[in-house]
Formats: sequence, C-alpha cells, structure tokens
Amino acid sequence: MKIDIVENVLKYNKDHAAKNRKLFEENNVMVLNLLSSPGAGKTSLIIETIKRLNNKKKTGVIEGDISSTYDSEKIQKFTPRVVQINTGGACHLNATMVSSAVKKLKIKNLDIIIIENVGNLICPVGFDLGEDYKIVLSSVNEGDDKPVKYPPAFIKGNLVLLNKIDLLEISDFNLEFFSNTVRKLNLDSKIIQISCKTGIGLDKWIIWLENAVSNKCYK
Amino acid sequence: MKIDIVENVLKYNKDHAAKNRKLFEENNVMVLNLLSSPGAGKTSLIIETIKRLNNKKKTGVIEGDISSTYDSEKIQKFTPRVVQINTGGACHLNATMVSSAVKKLKIKNLDIIIIENVGNLICPVGFDLGEDYKIVLSSVNEGDDKPVKYPPAFIKGNLVLLNKIDLLEISDFNLEFFSNTVRKLNLDSKIIQISCKTGIGLDKWIIWLENAVSNKCYK
Repeated sequence: MKIDIVENVLKYNKDHAAKNRKLFEENNVMVLNLLSSPGAGKTSLIIETIKRLNNKKKTGVIEGDISSTYDSEKIQKFTPRVVQINTGGACHLNATMVSSAVKKLKIKNLDIIIIENVGNLICPVGFDLGEDYKIVLSSVNEGDDKPVKYPPAFIKGNLVLLNKIDLLEISDFNLEFFSNTVRKLNLDSKIIQISCKTGIGLDKWIIWLENAVSNKCYK
Repeated sequence: MKIDIVENVLKYNKDHAAKNRKLFEENNVMVLNLLSSPGAGKTSLIIETIKRLNNKKKTGVIEGDISSTYDSEKIQKFTPRVVQINTGGACHLNATMVSSAVKKLKIKNLDIIIIENVGNLICPVGFDLGEDYKIVLSSVNEGDDKPVKYPPAFIKGNLVLLNKIDLLEISDFNLEFFSNTVRKLNLDSKIIQISCKTGIGLDKWIIWLENAVSNKCYK
C-alpha cells in the first residue's frame, strides 16, 4: 500500500508536469528548475541573472520557500515578475504548485521562467515541474564531496554551477575531485564556475542561458 | 486518508523514539541529533569533538547519509565507534534506523552518542530519534537568513552552533540579525560561534557538551 501511495503521488505530479510542459511549449518560454542546498546562492544567482539579461530576455521568477517572502522581496527590487510559493513546510515544490504560480505570471510576455526550488539537495530532485533544465547550484563552501554525498541531484542535473569560486583559494576544495565525481555521475553535465559576489564566470552562464532560449525557440 | 497515513508514520516513529530514549536512559548515555544543511560542517564538528574529548567521554557516532560511506570513513580515522546508516534515498533518519544502528555500538561503554542526520535543514526536524538534544549547525557561508527561511529547525533546536566563524570578516553575514531571529524563534536557544577549521569557540562547545553529560548523569 505504501508503494501504491508513492506511485500515485508521483503519477499525479507527472501528469501535472506534462500539462505545465505543454503550456511552456505553447508559450515558447524556457523554464529552469534551480536546485541547491540552503545558502548556496540561488537568490543571488537569480538577481545577478536578471541584472545581466537587462530585459533582453524577459524573465519571470517563481520563488519556493517553506515559509516567508524574504527572497521574493529581494528579487522584487529587480523585477516585478516574481511569484512566491510557500509550501507550508513541504520540502520541495511540485508541479501543481508551479501550475498555480504560473497563472499569476504573464507567461505570454516571457522568454524565461526561473523556478527557485526549496533549499534542499534531496527531495526536489524526484519532482518534475515541467522544466526544460534542472540546474544544480553547488558552492565551494559546502565542500567538494557534495556529488559523492548527494548523487541524485548531480545525476539528474543538466548543468552544474559551482558558486562562490572566489573563495577557492582560502578553502581546501579540490576542483579536480569535484569535477571528476560530477562527470562519473553524469557524462553530459557541464560545470560552470561562478561567483555571484565578484561576477566571475557569470558571462559564461548568461551565454549558456541565451543558447538554451535559442535552442527552445528553434527546436 | 492522507492525514491518517502521515499520523501513522509519525506515531510509529514516536513509539520507536520512546524505546530508544528508554534504552539511552538505562545506559546513561547522552544523545545528540545533529541537524544542518549539506556542507555546514557536521562531520568536521564530530571529528574535532572526538579529538578534544580525547577519550575523557567515550563517544559513539551514528552517521546518516542517503548513500556512500564517505563520512564514516573519515570519522573511523579518529574512532572505531562509528556506524553508518544509508537511508537509500530517504531525506532524514527515523527512530527505527537509529535503533538498528545502536545495536552495532557497545552502548554500555559509551557516555555520548552523536547522530549525524542526513544533510537537510527541513525533513529531519519532525522525526524524534530519542535524542536528548537537537543541535542545529549553521554556517556563516549559508547566510544570516537561514533562521528566517527555515524556522522549524531553529524552533526545535536546543543549541545553535554557528560554524565557519573565521570567514565572518570576508562575508556580509549580519551576526545581530541572525542572533535576533534565532532568539525570536526560540527564547531558550543558545548560540555558540565556532570554527572547526581554526578551533575558535570549540572550547565553549566542549564545556556545553560535558555539562550536558553531567546533567544527564545526575538527573
């Protein structure tokens, strides 16, 4: 019975994710599901991305938190196109929550939606939201062993952004070990080193993002 | 029906936690449940604690991870009294898992058991393991907003350890904001600033720990 219930939950989510994906396709909007541990820098990444896209690509944000509007208030200083989801304690977003949030964004006017998932490197991984790409944000301070300790996120991630790279020199983070482990888990995954604080590497991230939008438009 | 199932899971866990607590009482062993985000420094804290206790207090470790034995291998260099639990993907430990692990430790010879929960600031909070204290480990790099964003951990935590305090000067972490938010959530919670890297504050943590053992012995 336990397995049935889990299967039902996942089937229900899968159906809603498919509806979301269809809606995103119809509106030609490219959607990212941003996954990370608490404090890896998801909100800072979104703010730096919005600043750099500078309205060239219209971006909406769906902000997932167990409670509070702390992050969406930060993002509102840079764009009005942000919707907060409070999960009420749940440890991940699901496709139904995203479906409700999307109704509050003017999707027809958007090129990109970035979904900031709840800060949790485990639970959000299993829940498809209808996104085009899962982006895994890891940070130097969390240590180079995160892919070893939390493999599912890195297996499912389409791109790994390694944030806080400005702190590499004063840490004992082994970049080769990190990269090799990511590659073993997911041969196709690319790693971009960034720092939302200093701006290092964000140009590469923006190029990746603009290419992803172009691929979506022309596919 | 959904609520019934959740209630059953929690009731089942509560019963097992009560059994664990009785066993810990009978053996006069003080038990900590260590909660944090991935990469906050739980394993480093355990290693530094074992080194400093230096066999004055015999300490066993239960190491919780979704997969891998990476952390327990690190800890084994400092003590043979470590048992690994792999949750097989589950995002938190439960009392039954701990009960099985305790059987592999010679509990009669121990003064302290430290349970390193799965790196997750949300899910482990609701699952009593039979511990005496929940210790919340937060780190400067995660940012000063963790208590705002993840209140349940800080509400339930008996002690907050703020790790990586050596990086305070090069971060924009607001210590007053962090402390005030923790106090608003939990008037009784104490905060100890530490750095597992430089050793700052670990003497205060060891004093807290030794007092906790004494309080347990004489209560």
